[in-house]
Amino acid sequence: MTRLLRLNAFAMNCVGHQSPGLWTHPADRSSHYKDLDYWIELARLLERGLFDGLFIADVLGVYDVYQDSSAAALRQAAQIPVNDPLQLIPPMAWVTEHLGFGLTASISFEHPFPFARRLSTLDHLTRGRVGWNIVTSYLESGARNLGLRQQVEHDTRYDYADEYLEVCYKLLEGSWEEGAVQRDRERRVFTDPARVHPIRHQGRWFQVPGIHLSEPSIQRTPVLYQAGTSRRGRRFAGQHAECVFLASPSKAALARQIRSLREEAVRAGRDPSALLFFNLLTLVIADTDAQAKAKLDDYRRHASREGALALMSGWTGIDLAIYPPDQPLQKVKTQAIQSAVEAFSSSDPETEWTVDALAHWAGIGGLGPLLVGSPATVADQLQVWQEATGVDGFNLAYAIAPRSFEDIVELLVPELQRRGIYKTAYAPGSLRHKLFGQGDRLQSPHPAAHWREVIPQRTATA
Amino acid sequence: MTRLLRLNAFAMNCVGHQSPGLWTHPADRSSHYKDLDYWIELARLLERGLFDGLFIADVLGVYDVYQDSSAAALRQAAQIPVNDPLQLIPPMAWVTEHLGFGLTASISFEHPFPFARRLSTLDHLTRGRVGWNIVTSYLESGARNLGLRQQVEHDTRYDYADEYLEVCYKLLEGSWEEGAVQRDRERRVFTDPARVHPIRHQGRWFQVPGIHLSEPSIQRTPVLYQAGTSRRGRRFAGQHAECVFLASPSKAALARQIRSLREEAVRAGRDPSALLFFNLLTLVIADTDAQAKAKLDDYRRHASREGALALMSGWTGIDLAIYPPDQPLQKVKTQAIQSAVEAFSSSDPETEWTVDALAHWAGIGGLGPLLVGSPATVADQLQVWQEATGVDGFNLAYAIAPRSFEDIVELLVPELQRRGIYKTAYAPGSLRHKLFGQGDRLQSPHPAAHWREVIPQRTATA
Repeated sequence: MTRLLRLNAFAMNCVGHQSPGLWTHPADRSSHYKDLDYWIELARLLERGLFDGLFIADVLGVYDVYQDSSAAALRQAAQIPVNDPLQLIPPMAWVTEHLGFGLTASISFEHPFPFARRLSTLDHLTRGRVGWNIVTSYLESGARNLGLRQQVEHDTRYDYADEYLEVCYKLLEGSWEEGAVQRDRERRVFTDPARVHPIRHQGRWFQVPGIHLSEPSIQRTPVLYQAGTSRRGRRFAGQHAECVFLASPSKAALARQIRSLREEAVRAGRDPSALLFFNLLTLVIADTDAQAKAKLDDYRRHASREGALALMSGWTGIDLAIYPPDQPLQKVKTQAIQSAVEAFSSSDPETEWTVDALAHWAGIGGLGPLLVGSPATVADQLQVWQEATGVDGFNLAYAIAPRSFEDIVELLVPELQRRGIYKTAYAPGSLRHKLFGQGDRLQSPHPAAHWREVIPQRTATA
Repeated sequence: MTRLLRLNAFAMNCVGHQSPGLWTHPADRSSHYKDLDYWIELARLLERGLFDGLFIADVLGVYDVYQDSSAAALRQAAQIPVNDPLQLIPPMAWVTEHLGFGLTASISFEHPFPFARRLSTLDHLTRGRVGWNIVTSYLESGARNLGLRQQVEHDTRYDYADEYLEVCYKLLEGSWEEGAVQRDRERRVFTDPARVHPIRHQGRWFQVPGIHLSEPSIQRTPVLYQAGTSRRGRRFAGQHAECVFLASPSKAALARQIRSLREEAVRAGRDPSALLFFNLLTLVIADTDAQAKAKLDDYRRHASREGALALMSGWTGIDLAIYPPDQPLQKVKTQAIQSAVEAFSSSDPETEWTVDALAHWAGIGGLGPLLVGSPATVADQLQVWQEATGVDGFNLAYAIAPRSFEDIVELLVPELQRRGIYKTAYAPGSLRHKLFGQGDRLQSPHPAAHWREVIPQRTATA
């Protein structure tokens, strides 16, 4: 059976997102990010194109590594200003019926007790269409403003994340039994108190004795997304993630990452096919290859070199201003540079990867591949990517919004449908059911499901 | 000139809000609180009735003082389950043009750096129609789940609140100068970095060196609401609040509170008329007095005694289950009971205030007065309240939703308009401009305005 390709849209509550400078393009509307009409229109467009979801990235900080200053990021609106992603989702949910929504939220922003209530609320208001992209890190500039001297050491951070998730699971899955809410007007019982349980969590970082404040939502725990690729991050993803975001510019690296993460899922006792993988990707599409190429050239004229380097420097943690623009980076022995350059080199061994080449590559859509051509050309390439890597779908960054998505919905989706590799209607049900076809809730052996049994039992034997 | 009466609607992202048990009434729809359609319909109704705003209360905890258990609260849905208020506002803003929205948020939930971004985002998405009800306390059960052994001591809590607000003001007012955002496509400058300033806050509780993440919104700082009535709470309100919520059952107590708070404003160097006062109030209205009385009787049959006592015990911190239901509480020497009973007694000296009488009073709409009658009868009483107390308007709790608000919009508002004491159209502009008629921004001598000058100056001289 042909595997269907899945499409997510990737955006952020800011200007230009991964394509700094493109806000100067006359057709770009992403600088209207403060206006709900912009988001409503985008949500309707994506639902028309049968996208699985809209993913909203976030950073709680500013890109100030490049030239040791936030000036370049500010000038080019490189993910600054940046607003709260959470508040965009309910209005977009209200005007759609099927589109899923991915919220990016760092476990460092908020205590899990109020945060779990935000997740439940979101799942209620979207009628079970919400995912959570679990972020365990943030920009240094964000950490400083939260009063943290420096980021928690990397591996400890994942131990903290494990406990944070355990608190969320206990609240979302364990505290309120199925059937606790009765809404019985005759007997005058809204909730049966005997079926609501304090979670009695006593951990290293959190003490949460009480009950969850929200009644169970359709999915209880939102669909869990993760993007970690470090060794400890992969273990975390293998244990918790249902969907994984990757940002590999090369097929070889992507295939390797997917294999390794499926192995981690097996190691955690899970079915490796229970994970879906989405790679970052940017598409420039027009009726013909030549027109698409011309469109890309037009976009490139609006891209910002300093904006791209501000983002790249923030992502790698290395001030790329210290290297001459044309110095081949293969010779730079810094590890973060090497791993970036390695991925690029395997995708394009011909290119000499200099700072300028990196800025050129990442200037439109960020670190993922950029595919350019007619609908047929692009569809061919997507099939090659899928076959070569086992990837399940793509997380689509835009060059300019909403036009990049309009091109996909109007030109690419019909082509994919003709080839029988894209759905022609949404499946019914929650986001989780749409993605996996096995109901609304997380199931054993996922660690969340465990607490659905254990918390009520504990109360019974207490 | 006749002073106009102002109306706010008072609700919460839960069932029944201040009228526990009324969810069993066949016409009540508040148990649909998880459904955006319910909120959208409510917002449109209130805008039709020219309400100034919809105020969304919140608690991050459960009412577990009564009988030392959360059972009664759960059974009657007395403010539990309770969802996040923030997420309701953007969709309601999208379907309205003028209605204001008040967000209740405790300064204990979230660090001011991300919280200030939530406020900016909300003000952007509502186009300047948001207020913030600053809560400095919470239920003990909430504190325990945030890992705090006990609530911070009362006066220290206000010192913490002062610093929390200072950080918010610095971020919202000081960090981005007017005109910092240029959106200049020709010169390719989105933001002029020279006009964005790190706030360099070093305080007792917070260290926030950086810049605010959001560009300035229409109001910058949302309209500030406060409800503190303790001595230290009044000082805080006198310094910061633009609107004050009170919940006095008696005219004498209300008049006293308003006088005292205006004096606090003077003490803080502010114009006492720069504060607006809203008293909690519940209205039961029908075409005739007799019909209104019958409507109230019908409501009372659905009210829940144990639900009311769960709320009352939580508010006072005293388990009312320990007193015999008919014991006169005037003889109980506990201070919290005395101050509640005192207010009730001055409003109705005839009644013997027992636990049962308190439950009866507070069972519909909570601690504020309950006015019942035809539109003319109720309008007469509102005018008496206004003249006797100097109150600016009312914060209207519902018996059942949305019907209580429908009755107000359809029956009372036309009557008030006929009397010339209610607006016939919205004023243009932001919520602050609608309320005070002096522009969108806080002005000196309010402490927020100070930072709009000082932060940029500091950078210039650094």
